[in-house]
Amino acid sequence: MELIDGKAISEAIKKEISEEVQKRVQEGKKIPHLAAILVGHDGGSETYVAHKVKSCEQVGFKSTLIRFEDNVSEEELLQTVEKLNNDDEIDGFIVQLPLPKHISEQKIIEAIDYRKDVDGFHPINVGRSSIGLTSFVSATPAGILELLKRYNIETSGKHCVVIGRSNIVGKPVANLMMQKAYPGDATVTVCHSRTKNLADVTRQADIIIAALGQPEFLTAEMVKEGAVVIDVGTTRVPSDKTKSGWKLTGDVKFDEVAPKCSYITPVPGGVGPMTIVSLLKNTLLATEIEF
Amino acid sequence: MELIDGKAISEAIKKEISEEVQKRVQEGKKIPHLAAILVGHDGGSETYVAHKVKSCEQVGFKSTLIRFEDNVSEEELLQTVEKLNNDDEIDGFIVQLPLPKHISEQKIIEAIDYRKDVDGFHPINVGRSSIGLTSFVSATPAGILELLKRYNIETSGKHCVVIGRSNIVGKPVANLMMQKAYPGDATVTVCHSRTKNLADVTRQADIIIAALGQPEFLTAEMVKEGAVVIDVGTTRVPSDKTKSGWKLTGDVKFDEVAPKCSYITPVPGGVGPMTIVSLLKNTLLATEIEF
Repeated sequence: MELIDGKAISEAIKKEISEEVQKRVQEGKKIPHLAAILVGHDGGSETYVAHKVKSCEQVGFKSTLIRFEDNVSEEELLQTVEKLNNDDEIDGFIVQLPLPKHISEQKIIEAIDYRKDVDGFHPINVGRSSIGLTSFVSATPAGILELLKRYNIETSGKHCVVIGRSNIVGKPVANLMMQKAYPGDATVTVCHSRTKNLADVTRQADIIIAALGQPEFLTAEMVKEGAVVIDVGTTRVPSDKTKSGWKLTGDVKFDEVAPKCSYITPVPGGVGPMTIVSLLKNTLLATEIEF
Repeated sequence: MELIDGKAISEAIKKEISEEVQKRVQEGKKIPHLAAILVGHDGGSETYVAHKVKSCEQVGFKSTLIRFEDNVSEEELLQTVEKLNNDDEIDGFIVQLPLPKHISEQKIIEAIDYRKDVDGFHPINVGRSSIGLTSFVSATPAGILELLKRYNIETSGKHCVVIGRSNIVGKPVANLMMQKAYPGDATVTVCHSRTKNLADVTRQADIIIAALGQPEFLTAEMVKEGAVVIDVGTTRVPSDKTKSGWKLTGDVKFDEVAPKCSYITPVPGGVGPMTIVSLLKNTLLATEIEF
């Protein structure tokens, strides 16, 4: 069993991006600039955005954080999106989700110019990715593929079972894994809450991508000997062993599943660190992409 | 074994659409108007477009056919698309594919206002459909779902195996079958040229959608007793038994597969007649849809 070290890979990629930025500086090219819109004071969102801004600094990007209070109007947010769309200095930007209930997230996402949509949530990017055209791929699916690539894991003709059909992980990663590409070219099965005899399906998988958000859902008897297991789950489970009082827990019962795997991602330190790296890669791409 | 009669269903739906149009006329509402752009004199394209125009007449739609010679420039075509985008009289329009090699099909498709893209090929419609938002779904996938619906075929929790990963059938129908909806909620597997042990996969399927374009590919030993088989193939195979010298042949070896099925579509007369009906439904929808 080999542990897929997302932390180490993400650090290596940050270094690559950092070198790319330095090269751009030397060549007199524009320094990538990411903007983030943060609404309110949700603890999780604050942490994520702070982490994104910090990562920008680490690799030499410029970053701009635009904050609003919870009571910001949808109209005001839309105006800010429009301003960023038209600001040539900004290469890409994100609106940290979730947004307060009085604001339509979908409306905000669709207002973003897809050429600056480095989160890859705009329907145009989802559609372009599905068709196999140049596009921004959202962070988690892109991070998963990057891990498979960095570990040279064979995917062509392999049976990849995705558990979960969310718009931000399950569906897009399934789509990517079936494209004519590497990583890709896999036979892909998407399972979800309505799937019958799930264990019979997962036991056939060469690659399992668990993205249902149910702690320790995937157990040893659901996994074939030698399978590759990618754990996307990140649920906070109460714990008396940590200072914070909770423990980040994946969708995989790691201790019993790991010994059966050829490769497995831990939680934390697997897919998680890759998501911010994907965002950085998209921002770098935004300075060069031609749609 | 019950034969899924696409011809009868399509006639029934045309009648429904026709009644809807009459109701619109009585209410003083706009009559749906479909425009079609046809480039050159390809025999297949001529036939398809003629059939589409005729179907419009049958249900009481207005239709406009815009013809160009093979040597039309991309620029001229783009201008025509732009004109149709801005013409309030036209509710929806299609550009019949394939186009001559000197014209980028993708560029033309993306120039179409997605709110008039009744073929559902624009990346925005592909993406919106994937996310589960209001959208135009392309004709063949929509036709397949309509058949499942009209025959009350259970799909929730069923294992649906799609053979083929094309942008116009395999990928979108797989996506629809996994949505939280009816028809949908199925466990979906997408197989293709790189799939290993395909028969082992198809034998597990409750529903098989064969869309690979290889005549009589699916044989009896690949199908489970009681499966639902949807045959999307329409290859012209030479035949000395027909006047034309060819015979429309599906991807399923019908004679040997049919006895094992609970439901099966014939070729011709299965999915085929549904595609034009889907286009008509999209055009009707175009008069009312709110994006």
